[in-house]
Amino acid sequence: MGEEQGAAKKRAVVLLSGGLDSTTTLAIAARDYDVFALTFDYGQKHTAEIEAARNVAKAQGVAQHFIACFDSSLLAGSALTSPEVEIPKDRLPSEVGGEIPVTYVPARNTIFLSFALAWAEGLGANDIFIGVNAIDYSGYPDCRPEFIEAFERMANLATKAGVEDKRRLAIHTPLIELTKSQIIERGLEMGVDYGLTVTCYGPGKKGEPCGRCDACRLRAQGFRELGLEDPATRTRR
Amino acid sequence: MGEEQGAAKKRAVVLLSGGLDSTTTLAIAARDYDVFALTFDYGQKHTAEIEAARNVAKAQGVAQHFIACFDSSLLAGSALTSPEVEIPKDRLPSEVGGEIPVTYVPARNTIFLSFALAWAEGLGANDIFIGVNAIDYSGYPDCRPEFIEAFERMANLATKAGVEDKRRLAIHTPLIELTKSQIIERGLEMGVDYGLTVTCYGPGKKGEPCGRCDACRLRAQGFRELGLEDPATRTRR
Repeated sequence: MGEEQGAAKKRAVVLLSGGLDSTTTLAIAARDYDVFALTFDYGQKHTAEIEAARNVAKAQGVAQHFIACFDSSLLAGSALTSPEVEIPKDRLPSEVGGEIPVTYVPARNTIFLSFALAWAEGLGANDIFIGVNAIDYSGYPDCRPEFIEAFERMANLATKAGVEDKRRLAIHTPLIELTKSQIIERGLEMGVDYGLTVTCYGPGKKGEPCGRCDACRLRAQGFRELGLEDPATRTRR
Repeated sequence: MGEEQGAAKKRAVVLLSGGLDSTTTLAIAARDYDVFALTFDYGQKHTAEIEAARNVAKAQGVAQHFIACFDSSLLAGSALTSPEVEIPKDRLPSEVGGEIPVTYVPARNTIFLSFALAWAEGLGANDIFIGVNAIDYSGYPDCRPEFIEAFERMANLATKAGVEDKRRLAIHTPLIELTKSQIIERGLEMGVDYGLTVTCYGPGKKGEPCGRCDACRLRAQGFRELGLEDPATRTRR
């Protein structure tokens, strides 16, 4: 028997920061699922990304977009949250991805995925998408496959969904083995508007990228490799 | 060489709900560590427990007590958070601990431990204490040793502390194999004032226990087995 026409899609929760990676992940998830996008307001310096997430969620027509707030006092000491710690600029490609940089936020993806797990359980969704990437990335421990696998295993032991209902909860990382330029190519094929996204760790007041932090440099390298101009740079300068 | 006198104790983060189990756990941790107590305000119906946590933290002289707020909209469908779901009363002991009850909150301990992990990393603490108990308990999946072990494993892969600094992060569960009466005995030996604690899932306005929910019944059974009166019942009636 063929698939019923108009059958409801399964639900998935997608972590959406408003950056290039999570926006591409959202587009990938949306092909097969009804997507519930989840964004966090945790006192990050780059709040422009929250506005970007709103625009992306709207453009992609998600089933629901939830912006969850939490107190970031417990996530201290990162350049992304602490006024005392400066965001590193102009690091060479060879310096990026080695030691864990000061932009690391303690347990951030663990916290994000924990809330996604709670929401997914309530929504009856078995699938969670996160746009982590372990190739062109800042070297964060919670972007690696080992972490994701351990989280998924834990999630199935933590929840009624996993233990009693025998639903198989899965954490999907469609970008984890792609280079930045491969991610951009994939997104463009699906019609993603990267002009809406904000990647920079310390953008200006209108969301204009600094062009010098690790995130900006990795993104620029991706577009450069494809011989393309970054639409966000064009729009915002 | 002997241990230096007056050497600073190591730090630990202790999850403190203000109930009997977490209060006992705090007392156990405080013997060997400088304790940083962490309480959550997540829109639970039983906010009296937050006030209890404040009193307990004060009485035990913790290094710091942090009350973290987060939006509970993502933790829907539980009798502890949803006005539409009633807290079960008068369940028989044989009914408690079987199927996961409606008081289960999706991914709650995962979220609590994730924040504890972030705080511990920033504090330079390798040790996290949680008062879960898998004997006289409500049957929640995230109170079982399998879950705790999986979380600990994940935590060491998620963090700079675990991956780069090679600190060994540990989740301690000193009560996990104790009965409720053994927990109370242990606490009384250490001078814990259980009159300060609130265990009930749906206490009255002054924090007085209902006496009929699973949590009240398990607690009452513990005191009864020891032939003792519960000081919280005495104070609040």
